[in-house]
Amino acid sequence: MSDGADRVETRLYVEEPLQAGATLGLDHARAHFLRAVLRLKRGARIAVFNGRDGEWAARLDALGKGWASLVVEDQRRDQEPGPDLWLVFAPIKRARLDFLVEKAVELGVSRLQPAMSRHTAVSRVNRERLVANAREAAEQCERLDVPEVGEARPLFDIMGDWPSERRLLVCSERSAAEPLSVVLQAAAGGGAAGAGATGGGKDPWAILVGPEGGFARSELDGLLKLPFVTPVGLGPRILRADTAALFALACWQAFLGDGAIRPAMRET
Amino acid sequence: MSDGADRVETRLYVEEPLQAGATLGLDHARAHFLRAVLRLKRGARIAVFNGRDGEWAARLDALGKGWASLVVEDQRRDQEPGPDLWLVFAPIKRARLDFLVEKAVELGVSRLQPAMSRHTAVSRVNRERLVANAREAAEQCERLDVPEVGEARPLFDIMGDWPSERRLLVCSERSAAEPLSVVLQAAAGGGAAGAGATGGGKDPWAILVGPEGGFARSELDGLLKLPFVTPVGLGPRILRADTAALFALACWQAFLGDGAIRPAMRET
Repeated sequence: MSDGADRVETRLYVEEPLQAGATLGLDHARAHFLRAVLRLKRGARIAVFNGRDGEWAARLDALGKGWASLVVEDQRRDQEPGPDLWLVFAPIKRARLDFLVEKAVELGVSRLQPAMSRHTAVSRVNRERLVANAREAAEQCERLDVPEVGEARPLFDIMGDWPSERRLLVCSERSAAEPLSVVLQAAAGGGAAGAGATGGGKDPWAILVGPEGGFARSELDGLLKLPFVTPVGLGPRILRADTAALFALACWQAFLGDGAIRPAMRET
Repeated sequence: MSDGADRVETRLYVEEPLQAGATLGLDHARAHFLRAVLRLKRGARIAVFNGRDGEWAARLDALGKGWASLVVEDQRRDQEPGPDLWLVFAPIKRARLDFLVEKAVELGVSRLQPAMSRHTAVSRVNRERLVANAREAAEQCERLDVPEVGEARPLFDIMGDWPSERRLLVCSERSAAEPLSVVLQAAAGGGAAGAGATGGGKDPWAILVGPEGGFARSELDGLLKLPFVTPVGLGPRILRADTAALFALACWQAFLGDGAIRPAMRET
């Protein structure tokens, strides 16, 4: 699968069903990207995925100013479910939020859920922007899906209809929490090497990080009463909200998620 | 130590020795920061640290336009050595590099070492900017020191005088590497829970991430021949260089570093 003949110029997420011979029309922005940024010509080969049908190679069949069409050729990868890991986060300033979304997608979250809490400094979330950033990051990192992006909701509304089987790790330096490594190794079944391949990675999990000001004491008390919540400590330094999220996501993937799996296609 | 009377307005890194009664003069930028940004007045209490003498409270003794002086009062924290973890990285574009430095400092690296490799797209590194960003991140995250920042050097010059006792984890999706979790748990002594408190955290380690284009095949081959190098895999997604660095740093801290330690001072 990874010989030179299989080389593709770029990778695009599309909405349409994918099967051999299907024709896809691209919207203005992506047609412009192929033509004016990548300078692709008719006949160029790109990869497409839609989150359901795996990854396919497609041929650029025709393109003009603001439009392009693709013909789907052959399947490159089967669809495989990724880890079921949500990130629930208080919105932060735009540049940091863009970065957090990109990193969270690369780190394999299945859902991004903005949560408004007492000290959240940002009152409005541009969901369209989050979706666009998530899509771009998914294209870049060779995921086969794009995470769902929830509408921003008050934190305790989200907790109110939380699915009880989904464990929620709450990152907080203020509570007397066990270290993240201890919680993850216990969940992986005692910390056997290779936990990523055999551990709790099929179970639904979530990570919650608060706003830059942290959770209010009353919020934290409320969270700690919930049966699906486990507070976790992330070490001695005071991490920014985005750093805390990346720390927890990385460790979860390494020890409970798919950190033991190799990339599907490697150019050597 | 963490009652309200001990509250400080901000935290500054200084060069001078710290002891009770010492007087410190601040440069123009930091005097401006205290006066015009934080709007502090004479008598305000701030925290200072220099990487050697722990953290001290100091009183703002006098300030004018572009100057300020502090009088050191009492020690708040003893100096404690942090984990000995270097990050060796190929320079990336400025906004991403700023972000990487901030995150690496929060994640507790002891040294930041830029390394020029074959596919490094950025030819010049502004070391002063890295130092300033590292200092600001250290002030923010309550570290007691600021990581060293090395001058950018060719990758194999750095390897040429590498201290042989320092293990180097090379992040690469191209080699047949063991998963990071497996390598870390083996180093921690079989993955016992609480490894962060008892594992290999006192030993010198380093993490190497390549440029956006990855290492050249010949570079990777050269790296893999070095006795102190262990290649590690970070999962199935293709991570950007900055994400790979953060992934490896977070997991190292959680499982071999100080991830089991709580913050020194918590406001509740």
